[in-house]
Amino acid sequence: MRDLVLLVGVIAMLAVPGIGQDAGDAHRIAIRKVIDDQKAAWNRQDLEAFMAGYWNSPELTFFSGAHEAKGWQAALDRYKKNYQSAGHEMGKLEFANLRIEMLGPESAFVRGEFHLTMSDGKTPHGLFTLVFRNFPDGWKIVHDHTSAAE
Amino acid sequence: MRDLVLLVGVIAMLAVPGIGQDAGDAHRIAIRKVIDDQKAAWNRQDLEAFMAGYWNSPELTFFSGAHEAKGWQAALDRYKKNYQSAGHEMGKLEFANLRIEMLGPESAFVRGEFHLTMSDGKTPHGLFTLVFRNFPDGWKIVHDHTSAAE
Repeated sequence: MRDLVLLVGVIAMLAVPGIGQDAGDAHRIAIRKVIDDQKAAWNRQDLEAFMAGYWNSPELTFFSGAHEAKGWQAALDRYKKNYQSAGHEMGKLEFANLRIEMLGPESAFVRGEFHLTMSDGKTPHGLFTLVFRNFPDGWKIVHDHTSAAE
Repeated sequence: MRDLVLLVGVIAMLAVPGIGQDAGDAHRIAIRKVIDDQKAAWNRQDLEAFMAGYWNSPELTFFSGAHEAKGWQAALDRYKKNYQSAGHEMGKLEFANLRIEMLGPESAFVRGEFHLTMSDGKTPHGLFTLVFRNFPDGWKIVHDHTSAAE
């Protein structure tokens, strides 16, 4: 009987290498919540709350076009300068075509589209790839690669 | 004695959650070889060999600017059209600032820069994020996000 229980356990582990289906679902829901919270924060002009979805580390990386930026604080400062300083606006942010894919028990990546609607009718949009890691205080983006329509 | 061996084993596992240092090093070396092989293939104008670094699946994704493309065969066809058809050239490809980071026992992502040198002196360049998975036939790129200088 013990052997049978062991065998069933081994088969169950082989069927879900790395991460179980239920755990994966729970993680994807948690990651989705981070992204939804970021969108809501952006749309109420709360950049600090928006940045809560990112790993608060100097090692956080942002790729955009041919430009690489590093660090959580620098990212917050850049967002404030580009979207909240005189003559700038944040616009209304929407995400589309989100695909959350687990890469291990504690990591995932997300593919998606962003669409901004500005008050002058312009609609900057593009694609992003986000790499997430699960930290003691939850899932955080450790790398953000965003590219916009030319 | 058996308990001691077990205890040492448990401590060793706790010290390297998810992936051991040696396994991580071996994986990073294998991933680096995929990238180096791609560069060599590009520079001898062998697009089939270049594409061997990518997951041969309709699910493979490419993000570039605001454009999303899907599938291995479509990527090969696109590379042939954009770099090997009349009036086009492949140029000399170099990678820089490569960072290979494990995300689990069987997944990793790579950040880096590409620099092309064309015969007319132009130097297209930009950044890429690659998501790798370890398949039975080796490490393959499952998602490529590339963005170029404007």
